[in-house]
Amino acid sequence: MVEIPKTCRAAVLVEYGRPLEIQEVAVPEVERGGILVKVEMAGICGTDVHQQRGELTIKSPLPNIQGHETIGRIVRLGEGRVIDAAGEPLKVGDRIMWAHADCGECYWCQIERDPVLCAKRSGYGWAPPSALRGGFAEYEYVTPKTNVVKVPDELAEEEAVGVGCAFRTAIAGYERFGKVGLMEDFVIQGCGPVGLYSTVVARESGARTVIVVGAPANRLELAKKWGADHVIDIDEYQDAEERRQMILELTHGRGPENVVEASGYPPAVAEGLEMIMKGGKYLILGQTSAATTPIMPSRINEKGLTIVGSVSAHIVHFYRALQFLKAKREKYPFGEIISGTYRLEDINEALANMASAKEIKPAIDNRER
Amino acid sequence: MVEIPKTCRAAVLVEYGRPLEIQEVAVPEVERGGILVKVEMAGICGTDVHQQRGELTIKSPLPNIQGHETIGRIVRLGEGRVIDAAGEPLKVGDRIMWAHADCGECYWCQIERDPVLCAKRSGYGWAPPSALRGGFAEYEYVTPKTNVVKVPDELAEEEAVGVGCAFRTAIAGYERFGKVGLMEDFVIQGCGPVGLYSTVVARESGARTVIVVGAPANRLELAKKWGADHVIDIDEYQDAEERRQMILELTHGRGPENVVEASGYPPAVAEGLEMIMKGGKYLILGQTSAATTPIMPSRINEKGLTIVGSVSAHIVHFYRALQFLKAKREKYPFGEIISGTYRLEDINEALANMASAKEIKPAIDNRER
Amino acid sequence: MVEIPKTCRAAVLVEYGRPLEIQEVAVPEVERGGILVKVEMAGICGTDVHQQRGELTIKSPLPNIQGHETIGRIVRLGEGRVIDAAGEPLKVGDRIMWAHADCGECYWCQIERDPVLCAKRSGYGWAPPSALRGGFAEYEYVTPKTNVVKVPDELAEEEAVGVGCAFRTAIAGYERFGKVGLMEDFVIQGCGPVGLYSTVVARESGARTVIVVGAPANRLELAKKWGADHVIDIDEYQDAEERRQMILELTHGRGPENVVEASGYPPAVAEGLEMIMKGGKYLILGQTSAATTPIMPSRINEKGLTIVGSVSAHIVHFYRALQFLKAKREKYPFGEIISGTYRLEDINEALANMASAKEIKPAIDNRER
Amino acid sequence: MVEIPKTCRAAVLVEYGRPLEIQEVAVPEVERGGILVKVEMAGICGTDVHQQRGELTIKSPLPNIQGHETIGRIVRLGEGRVIDAAGEPLKVGDRIMWAHADCGECYWCQIERDPVLCAKRSGYGWAPPSALRGGFAEYEYVTPKTNVVKVPDELAEEEAVGVGCAFRTAIAGYERFGKVGLMEDFVIQGCGPVGLYSTVVARESGARTVIVVGAPANRLELAKKWGADHVIDIDEYQDAEERRQMILELTHGRGPENVVEASGYPPAVAEGLEMIMKGGKYLILGQTSAATTPIMPSRINEKGLTIVGSVSAHIVHFYRALQFLKAKREKYPFGEIISGTYRLEDINEALANMASAKEIKPAIDNRER
Repeated sequence: MVEIPKTCRAAVLVEYGRPLEIQEVAVPEVERGGILVKVEMAGICGTDVHQQRGELTIKSPLPNIQGHETIGRIVRLGEGRVIDAAGEPLKVGDRIMWAHADCGECYWCQIERDPVLCAKRSGYGWAPPSALRGGFAEYEYVTPKTNVVKVPDELAEEEAVGVGCAFRTAIAGYERFGKVGLMEDFVIQGCGPVGLYSTVVARESGARTVIVVGAPANRLELAKKWGADHVIDIDEYQDAEERRQMILELTHGRGPENVVEASGYPPAVAEGLEMIMKGGKYLILGQTSAATTPIMPSRINEKGLTIVGSVSAHIVHFYRALQFLKAKREKYPFGEIISGTYRLEDINEALANMASAKEIKPAIDNRER
Repeated sequence: MVEIPKTCRAAVLVEYGRPLEIQEVAVPEVERGGILVKVEMAGICGTDVHQQRGELTIKSPLPNIQGHETIGRIVRLGEGRVIDAAGEPLKVGDRIMWAHADCGECYWCQIERDPVLCAKRSGYGWAPPSALRGGFAEYEYVTPKTNVVKVPDELAEEEAVGVGCAFRTAIAGYERFGKVGLMEDFVIQGCGPVGLYSTVVARESGARTVIVVGAPANRLELAKKWGADHVIDIDEYQDAEERRQMILELTHGRGPENVVEASGYPPAVAEGLEMIMKGGKYLILGQTSAATTPIMPSRINEKGLTIVGSVSAHIVHFYRALQFLKAKREKYPFGEIISGTYRLEDINEALANMASAKEIKPAIDNRER
Repeated sequence: MVEIPKTCRAAVLVEYGRPLEIQEVAVPEVERGGILVKVEMAGICGTDVHQQRGELTIKSPLPNIQGHETIGRIVRLGEGRVIDAAGEPLKVGDRIMWAHADCGECYWCQIERDPVLCAKRSGYGWAPPSALRGGFAEYEYVTPKTNVVKVPDELAEEEAVGVGCAFRTAIAGYERFGKVGLMEDFVIQGCGPVGLYSTVVARESGARTVIVVGAPANRLELAKKWGADHVIDIDEYQDAEERRQMILELTHGRGPENVVEASGYPPAVAEGLEMIMKGGKYLILGQTSAATTPIMPSRINEKGLTIVGSVSAHIVHFYRALQFLKAKREKYPFGEIISGTYRLEDINEALANMASAKEIKPAIDNRER
Repeated sequence: MVEIPKTCRAAVLVEYGRPLEIQEVAVPEVERGGILVKVEMAGICGTDVHQQRGELTIKSPLPNIQGHETIGRIVRLGEGRVIDAAGEPLKVGDRIMWAHADCGECYWCQIERDPVLCAKRSGYGWAPPSALRGGFAEYEYVTPKTNVVKVPDELAEEEAVGVGCAFRTAIAGYERFGKVGLMEDFVIQGCGPVGLYSTVVARESGARTVIVVGAPANRLELAKKWGADHVIDIDEYQDAEERRQMILELTHGRGPENVVEASGYPPAVAEGLEMIMKGGKYLILGQTSAATTPIMPSRINEKGLTIVGSVSAHIVHFYRALQFLKAKREKYPFGEIISGTYRLEDINEALANMASAKEIKPAIDNRER
């Protein structure tokens, strides 16, 4: 049996805007159905930067352990927890990932059957140190109501860790998007992790031409490796109308059937509505700001558009994302999204490099060396 | 055989903003596949007011015969025109309605199979007097590429004429809207003809609660007769947030699953995005303005919404609308939407009463008395 | 607080094919999350007859308390059980209905998100007397994993009890069926409870013509009251080809767009494939036999058909069914489906009258008089 | 201007079961909207063998020129025919393919908007020599109502000719099939041309595992080159239950989410219904026989299946198929489906080698050498 320490180190957010502090925190007891994992790798998301600065609309109570995209190795399985969401047996030593914990009882969980909308949803990276529910730590506690999936053995941590936030978001979004016809064109707005994963999913779903609009150049380079036929660097082409003309030329003068918004930039929506083909579809994945932006509503009905918004994901999307990585890992360098790894004690440097966009996605690497 | 005159009277738009003039115009020859009809009734649409004033984005060349929602009685059938779109035989004396004429050859007609998007679509009420393609006349010419449907004998002109514009728009919109679950709630924004028809279709499609938001009172009265459970008069409740609270109370505190925009008012879209239930659907039918309005894009993805825009219709939607009227005419007073009828020579008075909202929908009535 | 007895009476199936015996059985303790109800009314289903005779493919272990469509009044609520599936507060004295208990953990529950497919699903009417999980008793125990919904106060037991099996089956089937266009025609094969509920749902979902094919006459009479435009009595018209011709005449010579199989008779499927319109849709709800029947597969692709099969339901479908009854109860005599009520001690007479089709649906009525 | 001969050679079916005869036939005048092409390559389909033998349910009148999958080079364009279905300009010298000619006027064309169901549809390979509407000839006449698409310059005739029948059938079938989730498993029943194209489309649409069941070995070899992960040779594994067990092992014990029937063998349908996952989907493309076969209807509802049948295609599916070939031609050896080419005078040898399955697909090659 694995020896479990009484305490472990964690990076704790004590005050908004101040560097995280490495503290020794208690490791909780494992209840019936709970799981204790050793954190192998914890991805750092753009949201983590905003959360640390206190810029999010909803603020976590302080102190808090951040980190919501984590691969953990099981060190203790609570009684009765014997299978993962796909029905595969679980045992100590398995690597897992996990979704939010839904209440399972409310109108959204029961009648709408869409736990993403659950008002009592409880995420990770959002709780006090005593709960040990954040990835920026040595150990993490997965609660009984949290659904988990095993990480396939073939996948390196760098390949899989992005499933925890950006990739499952993209997979859930495409599921909600409805049927896409074969040989349709796509524009992806944004080349952060959500944009990159949206690119490779479009490429592997029968798209004809995939165009990525974003910056900076290193992300666009990765977009090309992940299946983009064309990239448009917004640092170089700063005028939306010029970009629209470039896209028209690449799409037979009609615009793309499908546009995926993964930019987080409110005015991107108006730009998307202009560039999209008549009768086309728009998937909005990246908006987080409470800001408003001017749009022309008549574009929506006069062009006959369908717009689908999607946020977060269920455990099924984690599962599909991991299966995708396993199936396509020889075709695409998935690990390159983790542009740099850091030890837990260097978490503040990692956050700074995410904030400056020096990194595509940095990660905390706790693996033994 | 019916005697066909060489000329007939028509109301001609000679200069934007000036009253229409009653002129004697030539009746054209009937080509192979064409149809000449005697106009029985021509509905007057809000668009007609804007068109007469020269306020539309796209202006018809002058002079022009307006009128795009018409019931005509066949007086001559061109060679080869033997059935209507539903395969029913056509003969002189039948009453028909008709859609735009599509090119049938372009990318939109052939590959997208959505002639509503056809760039060469040629509508009625938009052509010079020599073409005789407008309803504000004694006769009208239906071209060979125009699809037509017979009006069921059971229907009075007042019951059917709204099919020509508002009703087929609502039917096409609901078709594009996708599946609506049984016992879902609806809010209809707007109680002009598109809003009224949207109300009765929601009522007859398994809705639980149907709420109509609009003005003035006479239209809201008709909305109640056509199936609205509740109406909210925007003249009385002028604050959007107050209206949202009223709607929340009527929808179990969650908002309606479905909102249909039929107001033509750009800020209605932001109001709709606020009131709709998480995971809900929004159908935009009424926007015609080139104005922009501020919206908060994050509402779309964070609430997990689907937005569908729809404009105009195919002949199938005329057919479905007429079948609906025939099937449900004993349950609803469909004819009351025609709040007043006018002789052709009184067209300018009819337009004025449409402009002032004194009428819900006026119509030119050419029937023999 | 309600006084709860230590034991209660129940009708127990002791041996297949032998009459049920009225026994005194223990009332179990209420666990955290469990609910004890007093049975108000328990519907009797055709399946109950087959179950009692031991004719089902899967046999329940003996002894057993049957009864799977039950309205119960809460007498004790386990700790933590505070809301129903729609989020409404629960209290002692409320009337509820409930679905199967799903495991919530397997591939079907987690990845497919369709608990109807759950291999560990545990239904009611299928357990030994010690579990008290059958409706043919004075009390019944609803387990912690079982989802429940409140019965609206407006509804009489006779109106609501059919939700427990036939109606929620029909609602779930229509949900899986996908979008049905406005003013399409329906044929319903069978006029048992599933067929009757399918009839009224079609009627209230924008159908044009609804035709019911079945027998005996008393059921067809009820079908007419529940919205059928035409009924075809198979006792009178025994030849499938003759019936097909009658249906063609009622559907413009093209056949109905939609056929719903609710007959349980395997050859009905071949008959359905013949009568349905080209491009139409077929919903199969009623088949339970392991028998095979000849069909012509080329009918499916050459006619461009879509066939959807559906079985059982989630709690959402109970909720929608109850909302439907509440909304439409003044239009249709829903209570007439309960053609006779019996005291618990007369259960064997009730089963016999179900077996002989003398009753449309009998029910055990435990209400105080 | 290209010189057009008065007559040309054609292979004429004079009597069912007798070898085709090479005859000199008249080249018709080109009407307004018509197109005369020089046949570059004409594929031979399994149907051609049955047609020549007189085995089809519907027989073409005799004499007749067969050949319904043809690439032609334009030698004369009728007046007014200036663009292809995708809106691309047409000129003499372009290579084109074409669909059936629909009436464009009937209930199926206008109301159902599905010309595949058009009762007056007029195909190629089915007309007397005077019409010159078959591919087994030097020239072919494309009528005014026939929709055409250009063949992209990048594609060799061997790569593109299969679009004319098998590939457009597969594309249309997948379109009707509805949304397929990412990383779902597929079984393809049959490895003739429809099965092979279904394999590569599944592979490029985000499938996880693609399994092809069929024979003979040379076709299964090509299936592997076109993306099959596993093949099951029915000559080797002749027992359906053994095959089902093999498939279960390859699909996590649950069976595939999707099965595509492309075998033409009626009992394959019952086999498909057994192997498919609960909640799965079945696409039927290959059935042509009027034979019946026993199936167990309860499999459909108790497993919660959806079955979609599809036949033939619209011009859009030709377009999508050609775009697919152009986009993916460097990944797959598409030309290998044409396992042998023959001169027009060797048509009877080509038909014999199709009948014996010596060829996967033979073609008549008229290209200049």
